[in-house]
Amino acid sequence: MQVARAAYQPKLPQGLKGNVTLKEGEPTQSVADQEEIKALFPNTYGLPLVEFVPSDKASESGKEPMNVGVILSGGQAPGGHNVISGLFDGIKRLNPANKLYGFLLGPGGLVDHKYIELTSDIIDEYRNTGGFDIIGSGRTKLEEESQFESGLEILRELGIKAVVIIGGDDSNTNACVLAEYYLAHKTGIQVIGCPKTIDGDLKNDQIETSFGFDTACKTYSELIGNIERDANSAKKYWHFIKLMGRSASHIALECALETQPNICIVSEEVQQKGETLQDIVDNIAQAVADRAKDGNNFGIVLIPEGLIEFIPSIEKLIAELNDLLASKEYAADAPADRIEWLNGKLSAANAEVFKSLPRAFAEQLTGERDPHGNVQVSLIETEKLLSQMVAEKLKQMKAEGKYVGKFAAQHHFFGYEGRCAAPSNFDADYCYSLGVSASELIAAGKTGYMAIVKNTTAPADQWKAGGVPITMMLNMEKRNGKMKPVIRKALVELGGKPFKEFAAHREEWKKHTCYVYPGPIQYWGPTEVCDKTTETLRLEQSK
Amino acid sequence: MQVARAAYQPKLPQGLKGNVTLKEGEPTQSVADQEEIKALFPNTYGLPLVEFVPSDKASESGKEPMNVGVILSGGQAPGGHNVISGLFDGIKRLNPANKLYGFLLGPGGLVDHKYIELTSDIIDEYRNTGGFDIIGSGRTKLEEESQFESGLEILRELGIKAVVIIGGDDSNTNACVLAEYYLAHKTGIQVIGCPKTIDGDLKNDQIETSFGFDTACKTYSELIGNIERDANSAKKYWHFIKLMGRSASHIALECALETQPNICIVSEEVQQKGETLQDIVDNIAQAVADRAKDGNNFGIVLIPEGLIEFIPSIEKLIAELNDLLASKEYAADAPADRIEWLNGKLSAANAEVFKSLPRAFAEQLTGERDPHGNVQVSLIETEKLLSQMVAEKLKQMKAEGKYVGKFAAQHHFFGYEGRCAAPSNFDADYCYSLGVSASELIAAGKTGYMAIVKNTTAPADQWKAGGVPITMMLNMEKRNGKMKPVIRKALVELGGKPFKEFAAHREEWKKHTCYVYPGPIQYWGPTEVCDKTTETLRLEQSK
Repeated sequence: MQVARAAYQPKLPQGLKGNVTLKEGEPTQSVADQEEIKALFPNTYGLPLVEFVPSDKASESGKEPMNVGVILSGGQAPGGHNVISGLFDGIKRLNPANKLYGFLLGPGGLVDHKYIELTSDIIDEYRNTGGFDIIGSGRTKLEEESQFESGLEILRELGIKAVVIIGGDDSNTNACVLAEYYLAHKTGIQVIGCPKTIDGDLKNDQIETSFGFDTACKTYSELIGNIERDANSAKKYWHFIKLMGRSASHIALECALETQPNICIVSEEVQQKGETLQDIVDNIAQAVADRAKDGNNFGIVLIPEGLIEFIPSIEKLIAELNDLLASKEYAADAPADRIEWLNGKLSAANAEVFKSLPRAFAEQLTGERDPHGNVQVSLIETEKLLSQMVAEKLKQMKAEGKYVGKFAAQHHFFGYEGRCAAPSNFDADYCYSLGVSASELIAAGKTGYMAIVKNTTAPADQWKAGGVPITMMLNMEKRNGKMKPVIRKALVELGGKPFKEFAAHREEWKKHTCYVYPGPIQYWGPTEVCDKTTETLRLEQSK
Repeated sequence: MQVARAAYQPKLPQGLKGNVTLKEGEPTQSVADQEEIKALFPNTYGLPLVEFVPSDKASESGKEPMNVGVILSGGQAPGGHNVISGLFDGIKRLNPANKLYGFLLGPGGLVDHKYIELTSDIIDEYRNTGGFDIIGSGRTKLEEESQFESGLEILRELGIKAVVIIGGDDSNTNACVLAEYYLAHKTGIQVIGCPKTIDGDLKNDQIETSFGFDTACKTYSELIGNIERDANSAKKYWHFIKLMGRSASHIALECALETQPNICIVSEEVQQKGETLQDIVDNIAQAVADRAKDGNNFGIVLIPEGLIEFIPSIEKLIAELNDLLASKEYAADAPADRIEWLNGKLSAANAEVFKSLPRAFAEQLTGERDPHGNVQVSLIETEKLLSQMVAEKLKQMKAEGKYVGKFAAQHHFFGYEGRCAAPSNFDADYCYSLGVSASELIAAGKTGYMAIVKNTTAPADQWKAGGVPITMMLNMEKRNGKMKPVIRKALVELGGKPFKEFAAHREEWKKHTCYVYPGPIQYWGPTEVCDKTTETLRLEQSK
């Protein structure tokens, strides 16, 4: 499989295929807080959008030999290796003497001077493969001047003209800060970003989708479809499936559009409606009871990983718990004593919510904090919390004669299964194009830009590659009590087409069994199977 | 995907393609206990093996119109729909007037007279799809004369000449009992079995593999490969992955051969060596420490679902717990009181084992019994049990200066993800051939036979289809205190080639990172990717 797949030649947009020339647009401004952003980024603010278009003659720029560095930052996403191979092929096409260096285990590799040269032998081994193992990834944040200076040393030592940082919203914000710093200090070193994250929350007018979202969602949808088929064959289980994706519910929503489960919870809607945990439970229990009336004691519930923090009452409870536990006034370490102590301290409203939680989850909420003193949401088994509470509710409904049926639950959490899948044809092509685009941005002397590819629902040769100034996507937000420039995170828009499509069908999907079984990602075969985009992208880009 | 896949035409053995004739072998005898088996099955004992071979002229038999019934029994396995479509096409080829009836929700449909006629419209919707949802499955055991008689009524009413039962070892044993009964009572109704189970434990000299094993293992291996890639990119987690497969470790072993994880536990070896739970934990902890020395604080451990019952000391503990809890002498329902009560009652050896278990698992072991009074093994989270105990052991080793590193674990359990996957090309072809083979066995007037296909590592047109008398596979075993005729379950043979291949490499896989990432099942594309058999089958059939 790996051998056969290595031979795949990713498709490129027309604008990146032959001789490339750069078309510059109008100056840009940031999405909000223009004055503050401009003050913080005097050198990289207001740059124009750029697009690469085919040209009759070879460009003059970028012919000088140059070295380039690349960094993988944060969680894995399918296609990272293709960005790197696109970047490699791109700079080699400009000049075969150009070299590509990979910094090891994330941004920390730049600071600590850990790197390897990426030669064609290495690159060829990783073409069209999943994972970030070619150079590893890491979560070190590039924020301090001392880091920038330490990086500068090794960049100068290796004669590196530009660094490409492949990362999510935070990493690209940091890339922009670094670009500004290197420009302000006249180092001559360029910094280019690349939009990566399976979570789908790095997108806006310029970025149609972040890479990896396509493959990860299709991998999860394969599994959800298989479980749906199992549920519909055995007809005896409700499956509660939690899906990775940090805060935003893009992954859960996309998987729902692909597999048509009975229920999909969308955190953003829960927050907007101000629903309580009990409201969510009651809704699920009602759906279970309604299906049981038709003799269907089975179903599928999709749950976004970040749900718990979007339930307003739980969010308030967690905030008070964080404060109380930070005070360390309580003596005992045993969960039972800690919970008793907390019950005496919590405000009346939060105490009521706290008491309504099953014991195991009360313990999870009061367990070890993360380094910032926050509860570790990913450790909370929301899927089990919900199914236990649904079981309780159904018991009560049965006693009241409102439910006749059997309820048995199975639980799943999908995350690590999809982050490192081999990229779909879409992600393979998209990422490779991003890499080539980054090489052209470097050749054109750009810095503080993110490589982009647009028009991605058309066939690949009609895609439009280019760059967007990162400052254009910044606004000011509070982080750890201080206002910071950050790329605005894209949550699911309840007025957007993907959610509206879901909302238009969910009552039917809830009551009836409308499952769709997408099957595994296919790399060879009919184009309508192999080159399909996500439903989210298709709907968002549809007129 | 489903639309495109529906067009796939499964490959057939040469012997089933055109005019078919039957070649009969010598009379057979059962694998053991010949006298008892012969006494229990006087009419179906000793029948010859049969093989279908191409013929110059059309056969005379099977030209009379006939109706056939089909039943799906037990857990889902990929390819069930293809057995049914092969059977449908097979009987329609014999005579277009022939009809196929499907009994609903398992053997219970025969007893309760619940059925539908399977027309070409229905069949076409399910070709090459996963799941058993075409007619549903169930776990009713056909054992009582009253069930046989009730079934007889509906079979006569529908004019059904033969019933095909698609199931595992127990279902096929019951198919044989039913065949004997219908023959002894001169009903004229034939019964044919089909070897199904993802667990891989229904195989012997005649049955090279049970259907569904190929697809399920490949689906799990896709996920394990993705997680390996993630582990090797993030380099910070040990993943403990439990794999479905009841008692036998075939699935875990096959997945290990496909993905080369650091550790794969094989229950049959644990039992043979008489290892304790602590032995297993110590071995894993040592591997973690050895890898940490090389700076590798990550790894993959595969755990077969049935492990806990193969650890002799735990097996003894469970037996005593079952007896004690059945006595119901203890008053309290709270787990803490129950555990205290048990500590006072258990024999010294078992009490020691019991006390060594983490609290959560002691509770799981003493939780609700199944209807037979046994602990529900599938509810025991072996993957978490092992990782917790490994963490404890490593803490101790660290204190002794024998371990330097960080240990963090993630847990997974794969089962429902694979049972209903769309069948691989192998399973699609194999199952379709089994279905056609069953239709020819019916046409030839056979009963008490299982449809088989052999030589399955050769290209499909060289496969050999035929039938094996089920009595040939029977022996006497104790079930619920009584001796019963049953098909001998195939466990992993420690002297067999698959295990030896694993054993020859595991030390290298443990120490180094030798992961293989098989990727998702491919239906189109290079034949070496799409038509690969399992490693287990390849090794077992290799000379």
